[in-house]
Amino acid sequence: MITLYKYFIHDNQEQRLLFKRLIDICFDFWNGKTRNGKVLIYKSPDWLKNKLSSLNPKRGIKEDKILDILRDIGKYSISQSDVNYLAFPDSSNSLAGMMAEIYTKFLNQNMIAFSRSAPYATFIEIQLIEWLRQLIGYDFKNIKDVNSLAEVGGMCTTGGHMSNHISILAALNHKYPQIKENGLNNLGVSPKIILAGKISHYSYSSAMHHLGLGNNNIISTESTTAFTTDLNSLRNELNKHRGSDDVFMVVAVAGNSRTCGIDDIEAISNICKEFGVWLHVDACHGGSLIFSDKLKNKHLKRIETADSISIDPHKGMFVTYPLSYVLFKKRDSLVPFTRYESQVRSGEAWDLGYTSPFYGSRGFESLKLWTMIRSMGFDGLRKAVEKREGDAIFVQKYLTESEHFILFHEMTFYRLAFVFYPNDVKNIVDNRKISLEQKKKIRLCIDNYTHKINDELYKEGTICLDEFKLHDIANITNLESGNDRFYVMSVTTGNPTYSKKSLKRSLDVLITKSKNYSGSFRADIIKILNSESYSVEVSEGYGPASWK
Amino acid sequence: MITLYKYFIHDNQEQRLLFKRLIDICFDFWNGKTRNGKVLIYKSPDWLKNKLSSLNPKRGIKEDKILDILRDIGKYSISQSDVNYLAFPDSSNSLAGMMAEIYTKFLNQNMIAFSRSAPYATFIEIQLIEWLRQLIGYDFKNIKDVNSLAEVGGMCTTGGHMSNHISILAALNHKYPQIKENGLNNLGVSPKIILAGKISHYSYSSAMHHLGLGNNNIISTESTTAFTTDLNSLRNELNKHRGSDDVFMVVAVAGNSRTCGIDDIEAISNICKEFGVWLHVDACHGGSLIFSDKLKNKHLKRIETADSISIDPHKGMFVTYPLSYVLFKKRDSLVPFTRYESQVRSGEAWDLGYTSPFYGSRGFESLKLWTMIRSMGFDGLRKAVEKREGDAIFVQKYLTESEHFILFHEMTFYRLAFVFYPNDVKNIVDNRKISLEQKKKIRLCIDNYTHKINDELYKEGTICLDEFKLHDIANITNLESGNDRFYVMSVTTGNPTYSKKSLKRSLDVLITKSKNYSGSFRADIIKILNSESYSVEVSEGYGPASWK
Repeated sequence: MITLYKYFIHDNQEQRLLFKRLIDICFDFWNGKTRNGKVLIYKSPDWLKNKLSSLNPKRGIKEDKILDILRDIGKYSISQSDVNYLAFPDSSNSLAGMMAEIYTKFLNQNMIAFSRSAPYATFIEIQLIEWLRQLIGYDFKNIKDVNSLAEVGGMCTTGGHMSNHISILAALNHKYPQIKENGLNNLGVSPKIILAGKISHYSYSSAMHHLGLGNNNIISTESTTAFTTDLNSLRNELNKHRGSDDVFMVVAVAGNSRTCGIDDIEAISNICKEFGVWLHVDACHGGSLIFSDKLKNKHLKRIETADSISIDPHKGMFVTYPLSYVLFKKRDSLVPFTRYESQVRSGEAWDLGYTSPFYGSRGFESLKLWTMIRSMGFDGLRKAVEKREGDAIFVQKYLTESEHFILFHEMTFYRLAFVFYPNDVKNIVDNRKISLEQKKKIRLCIDNYTHKINDELYKEGTICLDEFKLHDIANITNLESGNDRFYVMSVTTGNPTYSKKSLKRSLDVLITKSKNYSGSFRADIIKILNSESYSVEVSEGYGPASWK
Repeated sequence: MITLYKYFIHDNQEQRLLFKRLIDICFDFWNGKTRNGKVLIYKSPDWLKNKLSSLNPKRGIKEDKILDILRDIGKYSISQSDVNYLAFPDSSNSLAGMMAEIYTKFLNQNMIAFSRSAPYATFIEIQLIEWLRQLIGYDFKNIKDVNSLAEVGGMCTTGGHMSNHISILAALNHKYPQIKENGLNNLGVSPKIILAGKISHYSYSSAMHHLGLGNNNIISTESTTAFTTDLNSLRNELNKHRGSDDVFMVVAVAGNSRTCGIDDIEAISNICKEFGVWLHVDACHGGSLIFSDKLKNKHLKRIETADSISIDPHKGMFVTYPLSYVLFKKRDSLVPFTRYESQVRSGEAWDLGYTSPFYGSRGFESLKLWTMIRSMGFDGLRKAVEKREGDAIFVQKYLTESEHFILFHEMTFYRLAFVFYPNDVKNIVDNRKISLEQKKKIRLCIDNYTHKINDELYKEGTICLDEFKLHDIANITNLESGNDRFYVMSVTTGNPTYSKKSLKRSLDVLITKSKNYSGSFRADIIKILNSESYSVEVSEGYGPASWK
């Protein structure tokens, strides 16, 4: 007979102790003990499925077994905060952020509702939005001067994907307010957005589908060799559509998700102003730079002229998933999404659920970022963000000097994509006159080795790099790949606790393995150059969802 | 000079100790110590804003001060797990659920990506979706037999709002696949949904706006006196649109958010089958009943015939925000939302981000529900859910017997809406022949007292009830309110750890206060009956976002 009582939280010493033992298990995951000191213990999909397959969900277990279950899950989970993890920038290792997030779970405030659930939480979230406005350079207020929901010029979301969706929604409804009642079907025009297809995030094409606009209504500009939006191409496209008045948004990218290239925001802003089009800046990656005046001036100049901006603290800002924000220059940009405009404008209502498209009940995720800022201050976060510049310079230099890789771009702030292509072999290739077919074979050979090296490192679990497909826009490889993309490796240094020493140690693992393959790679390339038979097949399956 | 190191998590005894002290602070919030034993400490919006207004975000603080900051936030936060909290059903007090959620934060898996972030987590989430399918009565598999992403017949979301959006999106794209490329603008038809406007959740009208369909394309049916969808009205509306073939979805409600009335799903399902229309069941509230065969047969009969179902574990299923699911009868309903159909169908890719509309990077929120089920088993959860039936019967009986309230409906499983209207006064009114204007005045008088009582209780912080507007569809008050709505109070008994004793104690606080007002209420009503001057104004501002 199950006694229900023990399965729920009460205040007793036994349960407090259980949670304190849990803290130790959390730290064991953190320090690597759970994973035998590795960044990950690799197991195949079938092995993992098989391990879960014998569980019987019908019967419960003793409550102190929960700890064993959780520890076991940690064993086969990848630690993104490990110093040998170099794939994503999501280190989530803010001390204050993690403490706040745990407290948030116990608080369980529902941000939909002010009076019955989240009174103080509501104002903390609004204050945080003001702090973000201040950092961006938008107009900002002291919380006591925020007099209504209509003045709350931003929104907390669960991810950059949603922040981008909501920006599009806001821009669309700004231009075509009749959509609310009538929908798009009788609009008489097909609303369009403009972005650089090769570098923009897939959330835009998803959004065009989900919001009923259709992928055919994306206008794609060219990209520069620095993986940014080509300004002339943007201007040309806007000119083409000047008469039809169907373009309602231009997307500028402040840190694309592959190379973190940053658009010339100031120039794009001027163009948008000239054409009277809403400018959205996707700063999901680059947003962390707002904490540093120096880096903001260098990379995000005039970002405060954008009509909307998405930033993603669960990416390069040291806090856990989920956390993203969308911010609007015009504070009341979300008012079209309420059913209660008068309450929202009068200050009578403080329920954030009134003005949050796509979100009803939701948690107090903002507390972690608010608390981290309280703890470190803008100033501490500035130092953390600026510290990463040094890491980027170091990584780029160290990999270049190893002479085993071709870097596809300058490492802007924390992400670098490259292929295995030892310089001595490249020199041989560059000095030979070869056919396009030979070039293609060499590309496949590079893909093959790059993937093999990365995959072996991954399965060994000593270091973890990212892998995805990328255009060699600048033709750095000199292999004229055109629209073909390379499988690249990527090092991402989002975690501010890397040291030069730890980075060197991680990269040395990569370099050592690469050196081991340089002989056979050279032999394969020579075969291709000598037109001997050489065949290689590369799987289509690499890379996570957003990278293909 | 700030040393960055100390602001990030490392494994040292000092930090472990800090987190263990945090656990005590979490429990102090839980047991009420932080709030002086109250369910809430009421402060006005201005007071709360003012308290925050002096913070300077530029400078950091010492890291051990974080605990004080968090404790202070708890002081002005409402505890939804307190036994005197009776407003929302979101008790979030599963022991296993909370432990798993804390571990989740340290794991920080990103469900967008299988290989570089969330290998084991991906299969745990898929297994959980299979368990939910099993409980619903959909076809289900052992995890080892799930061979591709296309077979994953459901999705984890952050709330019922989004689950409902995604259901609409899936149904829409099922009927009109051309939207993906062309959008809605050239569709040549205005797609419509049918639902009972008086009882449906506001997420549907929001979704019609956000997805570009427009609010004018909602067809509203009548509601029954039990706050459910009227079957004849539904059939009539479908008949009217038979020729135009523009209705792509019918929404049935399994537990509306005001009274938790549950539609006759079996009957609606038969009608939908007859007309060939997608049936969505909104079981955000009623979904917890799937754990009990008895309650499922009683309330959700034939739910497994629905094309899509939304359920909300962060509501009546004892886990924290955010957590919701949308499930599909046809497993591959999300495939239209991927850009990589072949990888998704072949089993080559396991990145959940491939098939999750609206979501890119997201956390491993599923772990809390998976772990709670592992801990309690379906069987333990059945007991928790069935236990609440007894609470509902008790509350309804106790409030009825107090003779101070008029209950607007039968308490289906955990929610009851009522007004202050002492039976002796009602008897007097019912026996008099009075004008419509007098009835209206009596209604305002009831609104006024109901709000006053509830608001005082709220501000005293001893118990916390919900408050919102509701149609007296069954004319229980005998005041012929028509389209006018009453301000009702609501008791919600989602928390399985209420005891009869604790419920009695909480309700006695309400009853005592109500008794104190019965004299003046009677006097006011007599004035109205005697056509003496009586004026009352009721603010429009009550109730959280979803209730107006």
